[in-house]
Amino acid sequence: MPSGGEKNGETCDRSIYVNNPHLESMKEDILYHFNLGTTSHDLQAQFGDVKFVCVGGSPWRMKSFIEYIAGELGLADPKAEYPNICEGTDRYAMYKVGPVLSVSHGMGIPSISIMLHELIKLLYHARCTDVTVVRIGTSGGIGLQPGTVVVTKQSVDSAFLPRFEQVVLGKPVVRSTELDEELAEELLQCGKELPEFQTVIGNTMCTLDFYEGQARLDGAFCSYTEEDKQNYLAEAYAAGVRNIEMESSVFAAMCKLSNLRAAVVCVTLLDRQKGDQMTSSHDVMHSYQQRPQLLVGHYIKKKLNASMKK
Amino acid sequence: MPSGGEKNGETCDRSIYVNNPHLESMKEDILYHFNLGTTSHDLQAQFGDVKFVCVGGSPWRMKSFIEYIAGELGLADPKAEYPNICEGTDRYAMYKVGPVLSVSHGMGIPSISIMLHELIKLLYHARCTDVTVVRIGTSGGIGLQPGTVVVTKQSVDSAFLPRFEQVVLGKPVVRSTELDEELAEELLQCGKELPEFQTVIGNTMCTLDFYEGQARLDGAFCSYTEEDKQNYLAEAYAAGVRNIEMESSVFAAMCKLSNLRAAVVCVTLLDRQKGDQMTSSHDVMHSYQQRPQLLVGHYIKKKLNASMKK
Repeated sequence: MPSGGEKNGETCDRSIYVNNPHLESMKEDILYHFNLGTTSHDLQAQFGDVKFVCVGGSPWRMKSFIEYIAGELGLADPKAEYPNICEGTDRYAMYKVGPVLSVSHGMGIPSISIMLHELIKLLYHARCTDVTVVRIGTSGGIGLQPGTVVVTKQSVDSAFLPRFEQVVLGKPVVRSTELDEELAEELLQCGKELPEFQTVIGNTMCTLDFYEGQARLDGAFCSYTEEDKQNYLAEAYAAGVRNIEMESSVFAAMCKLSNLRAAVVCVTLLDRQKGDQMTSSHDVMHSYQQRPQLLVGHYIKKKLNASMKK
Repeated sequence: MPSGGEKNGETCDRSIYVNNPHLESMKEDILYHFNLGTTSHDLQAQFGDVKFVCVGGSPWRMKSFIEYIAGELGLADPKAEYPNICEGTDRYAMYKVGPVLSVSHGMGIPSISIMLHELIKLLYHARCTDVTVVRIGTSGGIGLQPGTVVVTKQSVDSAFLPRFEQVVLGKPVVRSTELDEELAEELLQCGKELPEFQTVIGNTMCTLDFYEGQARLDGAFCSYTEEDKQNYLAEAYAAGVRNIEMESSVFAAMCKLSNLRAAVVCVTLLDRQKGDQMTSSHDVMHSYQQRPQLLVGHYIKKKLNASMKK
C-alpha cells in the first residue's frame, strides 16, 4: 500500500513510499533513535531539499564526509561547524549540508534497519522527492588488492543468494536485495575517473557476524580449518562475490520497498584470502576509508552540475 | 576445545574459554574494533583484575555507569576522568574502574557479537578468572508498568524458543541461550532490595529488528493489523516473555560457550500492549535507564563486600 505519489497538488518525479497505512492516523511520529519528531521539528523545512543521503557505520566518518562534501560543493564556510542533528541521542549521528544528508548507522543489519525505518519516515514526512541513498562503507575483499573500492552489483546472503529474510510476527518473509543498476554503472564510471585507486563492480556478501559468519580464523570461537575457510571464500568468489560486509542486504531491500534509488560502495580493507586481521597502519586504513567518500563526492558533484545546466 | 584452565601454575576457579585452536599460533592478536592488541598493549597488566563486565548499547550510558560504580565502590576521585580505553575508534567505548569494566555494544545481535568476540579474547589474553558479565539495557515490556526492570530467565527467539542460530560457513548452527540461574536469582533479590522500582524475572524475546520484528505498527513498513500485533504479543506473554530487546540471545550463547557467568537486566521503556512509540519525557526515560545500573551496582557492591569479608 504505497503512500505518497502526488503531494501539494503537484506530481513528483519519484516519491518515497511508506508501506504502512497506520502512519496516516498517527497524530505525531517520534523518530526515537534520531531524537526527532513531527511535532517537535518542522521536518519539511529542515530536510525537504535533501536529494542525496550517504550512510556509513562510523559517526566520525559521516562527519568527515559532510565536511568533505561541503568543500567539494563550494558550500563550505571556513567558520562552519556541522552540528550533529541527532544531538541528545548517541544511537546515530546525522549531518547536513545543502542537499546532502550524512547519517551513521552502526554495525550490522539490525542497527542499520532501525536507522533506515526512521530515515525513510523522515524523508517521507519532509516530502522529499528524487532521493538517492548510498552506503559508503568498509568491507573485507576476496581476491582484490586491499584498498580496492567495490560498487555492489547484487547483495547476496551467506548462501550467495540475492535475498534478505525479514522476520514479521515470528515468520520469515523473503525480500529482494536488488539495487539500482544504472546508479551502480554511474558510480563505477566515477570510480574510473579517479585514478588514485581501483574501482570494480561485483557482488557483496552480507553476513550477520564478522567472525564465524565471515569464515575468520581469529574469533573467540572457530570450529573449522584454514582449508574450510579458503573453500568457502573460493565458492563465494565463484558466485561473483568480491567483498563481504554486514549491512547491504537489508539496506537494498528497504530502499527498494521505499522507492529509493540505492547503491553500496565499500572499500576493501584487506584480502580475506590472505588473512583475517587488520594489520595495516592507522594511516593506510584511514586513506582507504576515504575512497568511497571521494567516489561518491565526485558523483554528487557531477549530478548537481548536470542538474544546474538543465 | 576449551583452552585455559590452569594458568601461571595455579588452578583457576573459573577460567575463560576461547574455543579456537588457531589463536595459539598467532604472534599477535589485534582486537580491531577496540583499537587494542596483544603487542601494542599489556592486556594482563591493564585488565587482569577485571571481575565484573557490564555491557550496554549506548556509549554515554556505559560512561555514566562507570562514574556511578566508582562512587558506589568508594573508588571515585573527585578529579578523576574516566578515559575511553577504546580511544582511536568510535565502534565501541570502554571504561574501567577497579575490577569493573564497562563496554558499549551498539544495537543488535551483529554489533554485540563483534564486541563479545573481542571482549572474550581480551579477558582470555588478560588471564582473567571468575568474571561475571551483565548486560544492562533497555527493552519494550509486555504487560508491565513502564520502568519495570526485567531480569532475564531465558532469552528466546521470535518463535519463543531458547535458541540462537549462528551461521558458520553459510550453514546454520543452533546454540543454547541458557543463562546462569543462580546469578539471575541473586540479581532478582537485589532488585527486591531496591524499593524505588519494580523488578521481575521473565523470558526476554530477542529480535533482529525493532519495527516489524517486534510487531510495531509505526515503522516505515507494516503489513499487519493492530489485532495481529496484539495476538502476537499475547502469544509471547503466554510463553513467559515479559520484555523484548535485540541482543540477549547471542550474548547468552557466547557467554555460555566461553564459561562466563552471564545475566541480562533490562528496564522496560513502555508497555508494548499499549503502544509502540516512546512518548515519555526525556527525564522519565533517563530515570528508567538508570535502574539496571542501580540494580547491578548494588549487586557488585554486595559481592565485593562479601569477598572482602572472606
